[in-house]
Amino acid sequence: METLIVEQQGSARLLTLNRPQQRNAMNLQMVEDLLQQLATAEADEQIRALVLRGSSGHFCAGGDIADMLTAQQRAADGDSDAFYRMNRHFGELLSRFNQTNLVVVAALEGAVMGGGFGLACIADICLAAQGARFALPETRLGLPPAQIAPFVATRLGQFQARRLALSGVTIDTEEAARIGLVHAIAESGEALTDSVNQQLQAIHACAPNALATTKQLLRDSAGLRDSGLEALLDSAARQFADAMQRGEGREGARAFIEKRPAEWQQA
Amino acid sequence: METLIVEQQGSARLLTLNRPQQRNAMNLQMVEDLLQQLATAEADEQIRALVLRGSSGHFCAGGDIADMLTAQQRAADGDSDAFYRMNRHFGELLSRFNQTNLVVVAALEGAVMGGGFGLACIADICLAAQGARFALPETRLGLPPAQIAPFVATRLGQFQARRLALSGVTIDTEEAARIGLVHAIAESGEALTDSVNQQLQAIHACAPNALATTKQLLRDSAGLRDSGLEALLDSAARQFADAMQRGEGREGARAFIEKRPAEWQQA
Amino acid sequence: METLIVEQQGSARLLTLNRPQQRNAMNLQMVEDLLQQLATAEADEQIRALVLRGSSGHFCAGGDIADMLTAQQRAADGDSDAFYRMNRHFGELLSRFNQTNLVVVAALEGAVMGGGFGLACIADICLAAQGARFALPETRLGLPPAQIAPFVATRLGQFQARRLALSGVTIDTEEAARIGLVHAIAESGEALTDSVNQQLQAIHACAPNALATTKQLLRDSAGLRDSGLEALLDSAARQFADAMQRGEGREGARAFIEKRPAEWQQA
Repeated sequence: METLIVEQQGSARLLTLNRPQQRNAMNLQMVEDLLQQLATAEADEQIRALVLRGSSGHFCAGGDIADMLTAQQRAADGDSDAFYRMNRHFGELLSRFNQTNLVVVAALEGAVMGGGFGLACIADICLAAQGARFALPETRLGLPPAQIAPFVATRLGQFQARRLALSGVTIDTEEAARIGLVHAIAESGEALTDSVNQQLQAIHACAPNALATTKQLLRDSAGLRDSGLEALLDSAARQFADAMQRGEGREGARAFIEKRPAEWQQA
Repeated sequence: METLIVEQQGSARLLTLNRPQQRNAMNLQMVEDLLQQLATAEADEQIRALVLRGSSGHFCAGGDIADMLTAQQRAADGDSDAFYRMNRHFGELLSRFNQTNLVVVAALEGAVMGGGFGLACIADICLAAQGARFALPETRLGLPPAQIAPFVATRLGQFQARRLALSGVTIDTEEAARIGLVHAIAESGEALTDSVNQQLQAIHACAPNALATTKQLLRDSAGLRDSGLEALLDSAARQFADAMQRGEGREGARAFIEKRPAEWQQA
Repeated sequence: METLIVEQQGSARLLTLNRPQQRNAMNLQMVEDLLQQLATAEADEQIRALVLRGSSGHFCAGGDIADMLTAQQRAADGDSDAFYRMNRHFGELLSRFNQTNLVVVAALEGAVMGGGFGLACIADICLAAQGARFALPETRLGLPPAQIAPFVATRLGQFQARRLALSGVTIDTEEAARIGLVHAIAESGEALTDSVNQQLQAIHACAPNALATTKQLLRDSAGLRDSGLEALLDSAARQFADAMQRGEGREGARAFIEKRPAEWQQA
């Protein structure tokens, strides 16, 4: 694709943002390409995980300047919605990746800025190389981090989100781990590849439907109060029973007793 | 009791999961015994805290295999709700302990897996020994962590919950502390006992009704937006005034001024 | 003012709690003075940030004993709402500072107790000196941390809030940073002043309206589920477009292209 390198690795699809001259800044074409790849992957029953990474040592430096200038020209020509549509479309990308039941792994290095920071915030598992730089610089440019802010607040909580967005400060990989944006730190870009591979092996040991059910269950758990919680637990017990009686749980139990890999763990 | 050792220590009741051959795996009998002990403790005005621990160096290794086989047999015999009931009953346990106004302390060591991990997530205060191992291995067995997931998401947040549940990875005590599952680390099982005792002394210095009111207040604070917050603050100010005018607050102020222990701090 | 020292520093207003004999314990006059200063600052378009600090090496030791005794006398004289009003008025302070769109920086040192702890919990950015002591001692005095608890739970999450409130334990600056109450640690009171100044420079580089929009956006993001999230993203894209077409975003883009400071970055 024009803006992505797409590879298959076992049950995972690797999507590499590939605009190295722009440190993989996100343009409208990349948003389109990522949305199309997501739909393709979701339709493929063999795929359990997506890996997001950037080419040439950077994850993503944020929004693309050329798109901004194009929208500016359109707005000047009377298309008053040009900036709105451009911005909202990026939010559509974040929403869709946030809602997928595939496991999303982000491999972070170099610049993780603005929209790139937002993309990291919708991943289920974030691995990062030492020396990466994370920031939300929008307010310094006179802009709100509009589509990004809700995902940052959900991931990091109000307190860390406010500091980052209200000061535009750049933090390093170690601090990103401390505030809960990064699960594991790799010493280099090569070590980051190893870390991704280990993570994909761990995901491959998990049953596909159980992964999808679990991710949905965790998302549905957000912000539940008492009565909502009880209803969710009812529904979850039903899913558990279904898995045991008809689905992967029966195979999992048999494999466990027979001391063999379950079907989904075979290469 | 069949599955629990029950002891009294000052104003605390100690409940020790006691199925050492099964690393204290949770069976239906243990669920019953814990629910009964909770009801007994809540009815006893002398009790302010519950301590959950496991015998023989393990906290709890998860669900019990024998129960699974029994449910499987029942399902095969036409009782299509057997798995649902078994699973849902464990969620009932988590819900009830999550809602109690007694202070719940968990002392974690050895295996803290699956349902044991879920039980740790409803404690107010988690103390852990070095060398404990924490995991949510359900998806590897083809199952969602059905009753557990909402409590894990509430305790650890989406991000840490997703990584643990979607990869089945095992983490150690230090990492459990880093992600907010453990408050304090003890060097050994004996040091864990000391840590529990210190914690119980601190709780004993706090007034029983103030503890119950405060725990309820914190629970009611979850996920509040503006109008809900104002209503809660109104109600909380009323509770404060009641404590000062009629309750423990008056005794607390007098004891403070007279430089003596308050009634509830006496042994 | 009677209880505050008020200074202007660039685009920030510094409010120093100034009752050193009482370690800056919060009394009704201080609540009034802070509310009045907040209203004044919000009405002044030059101001982007508020700094809260305490005089003489302490932030704030909690509520004032003299106010308590006054309320006690009034209650004894038949004014049954005296304690309610006193407590609720402090919650009004926390609510108003929590809702302001000015950036609130707290500089913490010495005693950060009770109401002082609550005040720290509504700041956007918390800087603290080594040797500070943080605690919620209310339950030891027979009282719920009534107006404080919801803000503590929102800031620190249920788990850390419960431990602090249900045991009354005192924690140090390092632990406060670990549990997410403090962003950065300074080695001394003087280093804390430097840290505040650096923070104010970073805020000064950000555009005032973008800051206000962003803070509102982050607050609105709390606890959103799917449909609410989409509506927020729509609205945020509109704010982005407005900034680009009419507001600071246009100036920010021009300054970026022309490699000069934006208007709001000039001293």
